[in-house]
Amino acid sequence: MKDYNKMAIDLHIKHKGKITVESKVAVETRDDLSTAYTPGVAEPCRVIHKNPEAVYDYTSKGNLVAVVSDGTAVLGLGDIGPEASIPVMEGKSILFKTFADVDAFPICLKTKDVDEIVNTVKLLEPVFGGINLEDISAPRCFEIEARLKKELDIPVFHDDQHGTAIVTLAGLTNALKLANKKMEDIEVVINGSGSAGIAIAKILLSVGVKDIVICDSKGIIYEGLENLNWAKEEIAKITNKKKLKGTLADAIKNKDVFIGVSAPNSVTKEMVKSMNEKAIIFAMANPTPEIMPDDAKEAGAFVVGTGRSDFPNQVNNVLAFPGIFRGALDVRASEITEEMKVAAAYAIANVLKEEELSPDCVIPNALNKEISKVVAKAVAKVAIESGIARIK
Amino acid sequence: MKDYNKMAIDLHIKHKGKITVESKVAVETRDDLSTAYTPGVAEPCRVIHKNPEAVYDYTSKGNLVAVVSDGTAVLGLGDIGPEASIPVMEGKSILFKTFADVDAFPICLKTKDVDEIVNTVKLLEPVFGGINLEDISAPRCFEIEARLKKELDIPVFHDDQHGTAIVTLAGLTNALKLANKKMEDIEVVINGSGSAGIAIAKILLSVGVKDIVICDSKGIIYEGLENLNWAKEEIAKITNKKKLKGTLADAIKNKDVFIGVSAPNSVTKEMVKSMNEKAIIFAMANPTPEIMPDDAKEAGAFVVGTGRSDFPNQVNNVLAFPGIFRGALDVRASEITEEMKVAAAYAIANVLKEEELSPDCVIPNALNKEISKVVAKAVAKVAIESGIARIK
Repeated sequence: MKDYNKMAIDLHIKHKGKITVESKVAVETRDDLSTAYTPGVAEPCRVIHKNPEAVYDYTSKGNLVAVVSDGTAVLGLGDIGPEASIPVMEGKSILFKTFADVDAFPICLKTKDVDEIVNTVKLLEPVFGGINLEDISAPRCFEIEARLKKELDIPVFHDDQHGTAIVTLAGLTNALKLANKKMEDIEVVINGSGSAGIAIAKILLSVGVKDIVICDSKGIIYEGLENLNWAKEEIAKITNKKKLKGTLADAIKNKDVFIGVSAPNSVTKEMVKSMNEKAIIFAMANPTPEIMPDDAKEAGAFVVGTGRSDFPNQVNNVLAFPGIFRGALDVRASEITEEMKVAAAYAIANVLKEEELSPDCVIPNALNKEISKVVAKAVAKVAIESGIARIK
Repeated sequence: MKDYNKMAIDLHIKHKGKITVESKVAVETRDDLSTAYTPGVAEPCRVIHKNPEAVYDYTSKGNLVAVVSDGTAVLGLGDIGPEASIPVMEGKSILFKTFADVDAFPICLKTKDVDEIVNTVKLLEPVFGGINLEDISAPRCFEIEARLKKELDIPVFHDDQHGTAIVTLAGLTNALKLANKKMEDIEVVINGSGSAGIAIAKILLSVGVKDIVICDSKGIIYEGLENLNWAKEEIAKITNKKKLKGTLADAIKNKDVFIGVSAPNSVTKEMVKSMNEKAIIFAMANPTPEIMPDDAKEAGAFVVGTGRSDFPNQVNNVLAFPGIFRGALDVRASEITEEMKVAAAYAIANVLKEEELSPDCVIPNALNKEISKVVAKAVAKVAIESGIARIK
């Protein structure tokens, strides 16, 4: 494996960060100055003052997304604070730009207080057309997202939840086609009950999966289990209908699908062997998966996906978030609904034609920049149909 | 005069705003993705987490300025709100970029509450290397600036105050050379006691002007006058030593210098005639000055400057703020001090060689992009000498 750490250090120090704010217009002459700035600029100001919606016509708001983090749950690094999280948020910003021509700007906040984060994002609303929440620890991220969705008129999307859930659903959709199984019939175990695990459970329930068992680091969670945070309590109520108790090894037995957003090497070959035939595994712990793909295959797994680019079937959020915001911004959707997320997942899945599908190819290549266009189109269509688009 | 209003409407709607967030690095290959984003990006994060100052090496912070406004005092438009102020703040951002290669980003806040504005900017500190306050109404702007200067480790600069004051001082410096008068000897009247008027008074006092009389819309202000806001009360204590009372017409008599940051047509020819010989006038009300240059000249004025680009001697803040932040950022100054502001003013003044100076040429052309370099150098030098620079 290449030394990406060293390559990243060199890249970041060479450029001193990865983003730049550029002008769309030249300022060379007195006329340029008088048009882009005073006195001419007063006129667009007056128009917006009279008609607030005109802010989308005369400013950059309509294409501008804030990448908001407090640095409490950054990659595998945990709570490293807002300054240390900036390289990730700038990375996200340039992916937005490169994959979907969305202007995105890092907003790394010097507070962990939920009220302060919510209030600050509300105060920043004038300049942004959308809010991408990132790397905020659970269960705080759920409350922050829920409150912002309620109080803002622009799309709010927590990528660690929904981006991962959408791409997982895309991969699972294609894997089930190959395995000849149906969403309604499969039994699923999710290892990990943080932001991604809970969001995956919710999107799977929304597309017809009947029962899902979720484990945290202590084992299976179920309604009534003590010492769960409120988010786990809530998801426990709508999953694990058989009230299973026990360890991950107990949970995984006779399941069709294992989805890991948890810890390296937490799944053994024996566990995979205990699964149903044509077992589907998404082992997304990073950088080391819950089980290495070769081991999983040896133990009989039919489809294996990971978070890594050096194995087949990479679950990479860049397949989802750029196109989702592109679509939402294009039609000025007031929010990103569950239907829009599911539409995005199916759009990603359908990038692969039936003849292209194989156990090693259930998720399209993350570097394919055409995907965001397909996703945007699907997302925009659902937004228009459901009446939450302000442009049609 | 050209129809800048229409030109501005066309320009703004064509581009949908004036700024764009771009990537400095390509994301085309798996290696690009692994270096600019996961897994490689974790390494710069780790380095910053261990050594917070490294944020300047590995992120865009060191070149990034927030243009912060609440939209309460926008151009001549007044309190039009944060959304309607965005075209101005984007304009400022592109001037920063065009004139000094500073990345600047509009932060237009949905609140007028001083505590909330101060707190929000503090929470945003991680990503920004400097704060440019803009179009915030007086006297709130003074408190906001003072508190932020105290509580932040990065430069904070309210351009409506200091930008105007610096360029006015530059023009006055050159005008006095031509008039053969000294700062110590001149008598000055300032019409307007908002943010610019008070800042001009302070910078003039700091360079040796002995006495200044300030008027507001009701006439001369003096210590003990009732119904002054706290900022006017404070400035009244250190100006108008003779305790003059009366109207602007009373104040302007036998003065060497008139500086207007007030209302159109508030100065008559008769007033100009009552001034001392070789009277210097900066009539900066926009777009219509306190007195038109031709009228002032007819009434005997020696040097006349305005805020307009279609008359000689334009007092344009773009001569100051880009270079000031460039210089402060280049040496990671922890603040922008009075000495740095004065150094900037003299650097601007000295752009014009003695043989170039004339009553119609005391301020250099605002479009000259070399000026910001000269200003940056002067500002950085003072910062280093006074020990507030973190890079030398």
